[in-house]
Amino acid sequence: MNLLSVDTIEQAREKIRACVKSLPIKNETVSLDESLGRILALDIFAEEDIPAFNRATVDGYAVISSDTAGAGEAIPVFLKCAGEVSMGEAAGFSIHSGECAYVPTGGMIPSGADAVAMIEYCEDSGGSIAVYEAVASGAGVALAGEDIKKGALLLRRGTLIRPQEAGALSAAGIIHFPVFVPLRLSIISTGDELVSPEGIPAPGKIRDINSNALKALSLRRGYSVVSSKIVSDDAALLEAAIGEAIAISDVVVISGGSSKGEKDSTASAINRAAKPGVFSHGLSLKPGKPTILGWDEESRTLLAGLPGHPVAAMVVFELLLGWLCDKLFDRPPGFAVPARISCNVPGSPGRAVCQPVILRLEGDSYTAEPVFGKSGMITTLTRADGYVMIDLNKEGLKKGESVMVHLF
Amino acid sequence: MNLLSVDTIEQAREKIRACVKSLPIKNETVSLDESLGRILALDIFAEEDIPAFNRATVDGYAVISSDTAGAGEAIPVFLKCAGEVSMGEAAGFSIHSGECAYVPTGGMIPSGADAVAMIEYCEDSGGSIAVYEAVASGAGVALAGEDIKKGALLLRRGTLIRPQEAGALSAAGIIHFPVFVPLRLSIISTGDELVSPEGIPAPGKIRDINSNALKALSLRRGYSVVSSKIVSDDAALLEAAIGEAIAISDVVVISGGSSKGEKDSTASAINRAAKPGVFSHGLSLKPGKPTILGWDEESRTLLAGLPGHPVAAMVVFELLLGWLCDKLFDRPPGFAVPARISCNVPGSPGRAVCQPVILRLEGDSYTAEPVFGKSGMITTLTRADGYVMIDLNKEGLKKGESVMVHLF
Repeated sequence: MNLLSVDTIEQAREKIRACVKSLPIKNETVSLDESLGRILALDIFAEEDIPAFNRATVDGYAVISSDTAGAGEAIPVFLKCAGEVSMGEAAGFSIHSGECAYVPTGGMIPSGADAVAMIEYCEDSGGSIAVYEAVASGAGVALAGEDIKKGALLLRRGTLIRPQEAGALSAAGIIHFPVFVPLRLSIISTGDELVSPEGIPAPGKIRDINSNALKALSLRRGYSVVSSKIVSDDAALLEAAIGEAIAISDVVVISGGSSKGEKDSTASAINRAAKPGVFSHGLSLKPGKPTILGWDEESRTLLAGLPGHPVAAMVVFELLLGWLCDKLFDRPPGFAVPARISCNVPGSPGRAVCQPVILRLEGDSYTAEPVFGKSGMITTLTRADGYVMIDLNKEGLKKGESVMVHLF
Repeated sequence: MNLLSVDTIEQAREKIRACVKSLPIKNETVSLDESLGRILALDIFAEEDIPAFNRATVDGYAVISSDTAGAGEAIPVFLKCAGEVSMGEAAGFSIHSGECAYVPTGGMIPSGADAVAMIEYCEDSGGSIAVYEAVASGAGVALAGEDIKKGALLLRRGTLIRPQEAGALSAAGIIHFPVFVPLRLSIISTGDELVSPEGIPAPGKIRDINSNALKALSLRRGYSVVSSKIVSDDAALLEAAIGEAIAISDVVVISGGSSKGEKDSTASAINRAAKPGVFSHGLSLKPGKPTILGWDEESRTLLAGLPGHPVAAMVVFELLLGWLCDKLFDRPPGFAVPARISCNVPGSPGRAVCQPVILRLEGDSYTAEPVFGKSGMITTLTRADGYVMIDLNKEGLKKGESVMVHLF
């Protein structure tokens, strides 16, 4: 890996984008019940007005607003009560000048009426109603289509289904709709030192952290994890594992040891198992330098060799593969939290730095306190609420400087 | 409902807290694989050191640091190579003064050695190794227990399991652990005007929004939804539905119409179905005033009568029942996003105001733009990214004022 060939995050993203433009993005139809947290695959248009009829937004008397002109606390207008609208029923009659009709909140406004005088300002004086306020046209009324107009865009492609989107789709009667099918992702953890988390490590061995951490991160970012395995540092076994994963995946993640020899063997294995193979070898990111990206054209599979250190592996996953899902699914990135950094943080010449931080609320603003730790330390991330990116052209952060914290 | 009996949000929360202190909070053991997004029910302590042995954090030669004193670019120290440590194997030998041993990143440091000289500063000169740098004790080494000490608190009760927590639990070999069992919640939507979202509403009727919106919100906030039904405005039917829900739920949500008569009938039905019944009648919150809270002591069930308007129902749910889950499960609230409000927003005398907003990123800071809309309009919330609370003692917000946006 020579320094000249190292990519910036933007360059690596551009190369990924060029490859994956041929990736087949699929939709599937789901019901509202199963859709929470999924991403809309198509723009959804309203097929009817919502509300479908003029509705009262207060309890009161539906009136013709011009009939109430001049009414006030001292001088009521007297209107003949033409009837009462029952909740959930068609009004069934019209209002003419000089008339009114009782309507409960949510009830249908009879035709002819254009406003509702609130019950608090009305008095039943035996057959006729004294109205003690002048109401403007539209007061107390939600007009048909005021919430959603027939034919209007209700929700755009790329929208995350939250509780309120479930509500809007319910209102529009759209209970089946297309969402994106998650990309299929396989995880390969490599290293002679790894044992499964269930196991008791012999001396010199450690439990595999990356399989479970990357699996959880994949699910959170919208992938489906189709396979996960530990492979020892053996060229033939690694090549075979990559080949098997390519056959069933859109993305294959290989988290390798970070030692020199292992990095080279991941690149070689990708080059043997995939054509054209490696297209990016090294990332100008700290942590995350030993990152390798490859592509298999025949199966249209992206391959990502991530660093073995858990923090570096998760950071690179988030910045490249989390980003990829956002791009492919047209999903806006999440909101970052503006904060001030609590102390000086050194940059790294020629490399962007991803710095984990803890957020502390002080009054109405946040302070971001860096969590320092060797990149093999997973507790760096369990203590962190998010991370701050330091641009590769920046010398570092000065205490008190404004930063944007991306939540982890 | 008289004004004197209306509760502030804090008063309502205090009353809820007093009731639910007898609510049985249960744990269940889950596997790591099923735990993403769950809340730890107990403090988790590490049962062993992580790493379990001193590990190299770079490729290089394990040395006794004092042996390298005085070494530099021009003047190497020569050390005898006592062996090579294989990845994933016990070192199997010790280092004595004048010796060194090759160790790959992640490999076990032989006993005796206290530092690793990076391979870039070493040269193999046939049997002996020339070391061109003086290394301090601990350089290039992750000490046993440096990430997590045996017996130390690994994760505290109330921790949300994110990908990094899955990683830390994997590292510690803790693959089964207790999480909170979600509270059981039932949803009753009341109103003669409601039809199920699958149906075609007859004139005067509308589709039920709240069942699906509140169901999704319940799931997101950590409840399990055990039943959901639409009930017409009939006192006996409503009482029966509440009775059935109480029998199987920890929390029963009744989203009622907002008209005067209906509010009273929800309170009466709660009082007939639950003992002691209603303990809070009206909330000094906009939107959300017609909120009713009750308690059934025998079954230990909380009852919440929410406004019928979807925006108001979701706001009250979030502020009272979302808050309740955080409290019961010892979970810190999520992070709000500091922003500046884009225009003046009126307050409401004597009531807190929940104002939905859109967040716009401008450079490194956010502007919060209010989404105004009648409280029956669900699109107010699909357009919003979050909400701002205006304190009940505040006259309103001035354009440019700092606000905290709670993401929805």
